[in-house]
Amino acid sequence: MYNLSDTIVALSTPQGEGAIGVIRLSGNKAISICDEVFFGKNLSKQKSHTLHFGTIKNDDGKIIDEVLISIFKNPHSYTGEDVCEVSCHGSQYIIQQLLQLFIQKGARTAKAGEFTMRAFLNGKMDLSQAEAVADLIASESEASHSIALQQMRGGISNEIKNLRQELIDFAALIELELDFGEEDVEFADREKLKNLIIKIKKLIQNLLQTFELGNAIKQGINTVIAGRPNAGKSTLLNTLLQEDRAIVSDIEGTTRDVIEETLNIQGITFRLIDTAGLREATDTIEAIGIEKTIEKVNQSAILMYVFDSMKMDIPEVEKDISKLYKEGMKVLIISNKEDMYYEMHDHPKSHYNQEQVTKSKNENWDKIYQEFKNKGFVFVANVSAKKNYNIDKIKNSLYNLAIGEKLNTSSTIVANSRHYEALQGAFESLDQALHNLSSGISGDFVAMDIRHSLNYLGEITGEISSEDLLDSIFSRFCIGK
Amino acid sequence: MYNLSDTIVALSTPQGEGAIGVIRLSGNKAISICDEVFFGKNLSKQKSHTLHFGTIKNDDGKIIDEVLISIFKNPHSYTGEDVCEVSCHGSQYIIQQLLQLFIQKGARTAKAGEFTMRAFLNGKMDLSQAEAVADLIASESEASHSIALQQMRGGISNEIKNLRQELIDFAALIELELDFGEEDVEFADREKLKNLIIKIKKLIQNLLQTFELGNAIKQGINTVIAGRPNAGKSTLLNTLLQEDRAIVSDIEGTTRDVIEETLNIQGITFRLIDTAGLREATDTIEAIGIEKTIEKVNQSAILMYVFDSMKMDIPEVEKDISKLYKEGMKVLIISNKEDMYYEMHDHPKSHYNQEQVTKSKNENWDKIYQEFKNKGFVFVANVSAKKNYNIDKIKNSLYNLAIGEKLNTSSTIVANSRHYEALQGAFESLDQALHNLSSGISGDFVAMDIRHSLNYLGEITGEISSEDLLDSIFSRFCIGK
Repeated sequence: MYNLSDTIVALSTPQGEGAIGVIRLSGNKAISICDEVFFGKNLSKQKSHTLHFGTIKNDDGKIIDEVLISIFKNPHSYTGEDVCEVSCHGSQYIIQQLLQLFIQKGARTAKAGEFTMRAFLNGKMDLSQAEAVADLIASESEASHSIALQQMRGGISNEIKNLRQELIDFAALIELELDFGEEDVEFADREKLKNLIIKIKKLIQNLLQTFELGNAIKQGINTVIAGRPNAGKSTLLNTLLQEDRAIVSDIEGTTRDVIEETLNIQGITFRLIDTAGLREATDTIEAIGIEKTIEKVNQSAILMYVFDSMKMDIPEVEKDISKLYKEGMKVLIISNKEDMYYEMHDHPKSHYNQEQVTKSKNENWDKIYQEFKNKGFVFVANVSAKKNYNIDKIKNSLYNLAIGEKLNTSSTIVANSRHYEALQGAFESLDQALHNLSSGISGDFVAMDIRHSLNYLGEITGEISSEDLLDSIFSRFCIGK
Repeated sequence: MYNLSDTIVALSTPQGEGAIGVIRLSGNKAISICDEVFFGKNLSKQKSHTLHFGTIKNDDGKIIDEVLISIFKNPHSYTGEDVCEVSCHGSQYIIQQLLQLFIQKGARTAKAGEFTMRAFLNGKMDLSQAEAVADLIASESEASHSIALQQMRGGISNEIKNLRQELIDFAALIELELDFGEEDVEFADREKLKNLIIKIKKLIQNLLQTFELGNAIKQGINTVIAGRPNAGKSTLLNTLLQEDRAIVSDIEGTTRDVIEETLNIQGITFRLIDTAGLREATDTIEAIGIEKTIEKVNQSAILMYVFDSMKMDIPEVEKDISKLYKEGMKVLIISNKEDMYYEMHDHPKSHYNQEQVTKSKNENWDKIYQEFKNKGFVFVANVSAKKNYNIDKIKNSLYNLAIGEKLNTSSTIVANSRHYEALQGAFESLDQALHNLSSGISGDFVAMDIRHSLNYLGEITGEISSEDLLDSIFSRFCIGK
């Protein structure tokens, strides 16, 4: 299936000029290949977990670099195989020369994720842990980092393994009954089995319920900012980002895609979508015809609607939101530019929570506001993006809308859609098993349902896996990991 | 002068997402700082050159990453101090968190080149070796890599140290004479001193003479391609680059600046300058007024002039070249599009080296061709960029024009302009000493000249250095080295 007899090699540090680069080799010949080109010591005589300084020369005796080589001996390495890590000067020319030399001496270029795949195949980690390595490297926020790290350290694996073990014990009893098919015995206590399945279904359901949150944390939470022209959206966006930007820009190389800005609130990434289409034309949203804009709105978890408190009244706000709102969307309504009001009234009080409100253009506002609240919409008044009033309130509201009390990073959170699907499969199989048990159907069918369920759970940790599955998982890794 | 009591920290691998990142700490507290946050082993009890797996936690007990820590104990490290290298998952978030944690525990962010500066200050390498580290990281070609490596391994340092030692011995004798000033004794044999100075001057001159080559290799050799419209310059450029491009693109991250293309011939980088201005208007070169173009031509070491063999004759070629030629420039003249001639005559023979030539538009060609040869211009005939005829001849000619027989990477080559200037200073001081010796001037002056000369030589290896000099040298390094 997979050729583990090759020795693989790749650059494990990012491309580009740097002080050092690290080239990793793994496999039977990792140490002997290095030994052939390394001058300074006999590497094969060195202990595991030691570092050695020397030069690497090519066949012409020309020095390519002075390097440090780390030795890790099977099975005490990342991959479980003999591993050498060559730390060289971070010149692209040198790295290229070294890679070529190692290949010439018998190593093969590693495929994306192949080191981690070997770690999995050699039993150093299960599949969900291996997947977490890629998530960990890609993690941009505290929360996504926590979830990935917890998964890498066996969080979900342990839960799944426990569930599986209990099922396996029962399945064994049922399978045993089948062997005695003619004799009509019951080794497996049906009542106990039912209770077990109910318990496991509940546990799986709990895990399934964490997926929406886990996925949002992993991917970031899409948040659309909408509002009429001059509602102060840009100012609000800048004010929101300003404090955050210092932190973001510290982390160089943070990639940004089509989405314009990312905002980090208490370790959660919000992807702020502020398309020109929406910016300019909430009023004629159907007319714009910018499908991409609509699509983005539809994909968003949160709609942040900003209006100018001096110009608009609640019914107009309601009209706009009703055009943008989609089922399941969370809505945050922001009454902006209240500094104007402060200036007029010389004291910090919104005209949306005092008697002034009654003098608002539309007398129905109280009823509409109540409707918003009933729908779960959140209203933040007294905001001035310009003067930085109540910006923290907006951040807290965004965080609460997205995460609320749900986040407890010490418990297991499912953030991987492959795991989610497998859990769903396991859940449905157990449901079927329960149904078959209740209707007194033959043990054959119950045994089959439980086996299906076991397979689904086994897919998560990789106890059940296929070449296609592994290929698809590890191809998403970076080279050198 | 420099604070070596701080413990410094920086990311030593390139920015960006990768399988692993390496954070380096150096200083008295490197190990104790790591120990405070590392869980798995007591690092302070471990031997030098060993690797340790464990987790790093922040003060809240939250795991930031699973890491491998390499320990190098003073003086057996790159900097000569205690050094820890923390190999973590290559996530920007994790790297940022770890750096913050180390700083919180008492480390300080390292300045550019500060690790190497410490290696110098702690006597692990001299200044020219330290400078070579930066050159090595920046090296893009085999030749520049060889020069940097040779310098890093003490090439120029050893030469300078030998010269200095001989001078110091003599200087000591002269200084001794001065102590006995009243007694009019001569400890230092004037004749021997003269011969020594002459010998050393010669050695310095040899080194100075390598600078043009060394600098060209380090920077790459600027080569202008010129010719009239439709002479086939673009095709030639593509043909030249085509074979090379496979190699270049292997080395990802190779940076390109304003210069359009780089061509690697036998390990030497040629920077091909093919400006539109020159491309279109060799005929009216003075009229173009593109100063930048003229400037580039002036800076170029080689002029590669291409003409269409079917259309142009030698006198026209001569006219164009005389407009572009500057003193000291090397010239390569290429007679292109000879495939047309082959098609016409059905055998591979240029009309520039056979009787057809006499039928050329201008009967003077032989005389002009001879003049070209006398000036050292090189003429490559029989070229077809389109059909790939004699492209290797062009490459060999370029290499020979630029490097010739001069390149012997086992001998010392000066590639650093600071070293060049210091050598020049030393040379001039010795010249003055020789002059003063010959004119029988008092030993005081000779001693002063020799001291100047010693200072200049000492600047190269850093035995004589100033804070400003060190700042200017190390600020050109990348962070983390």
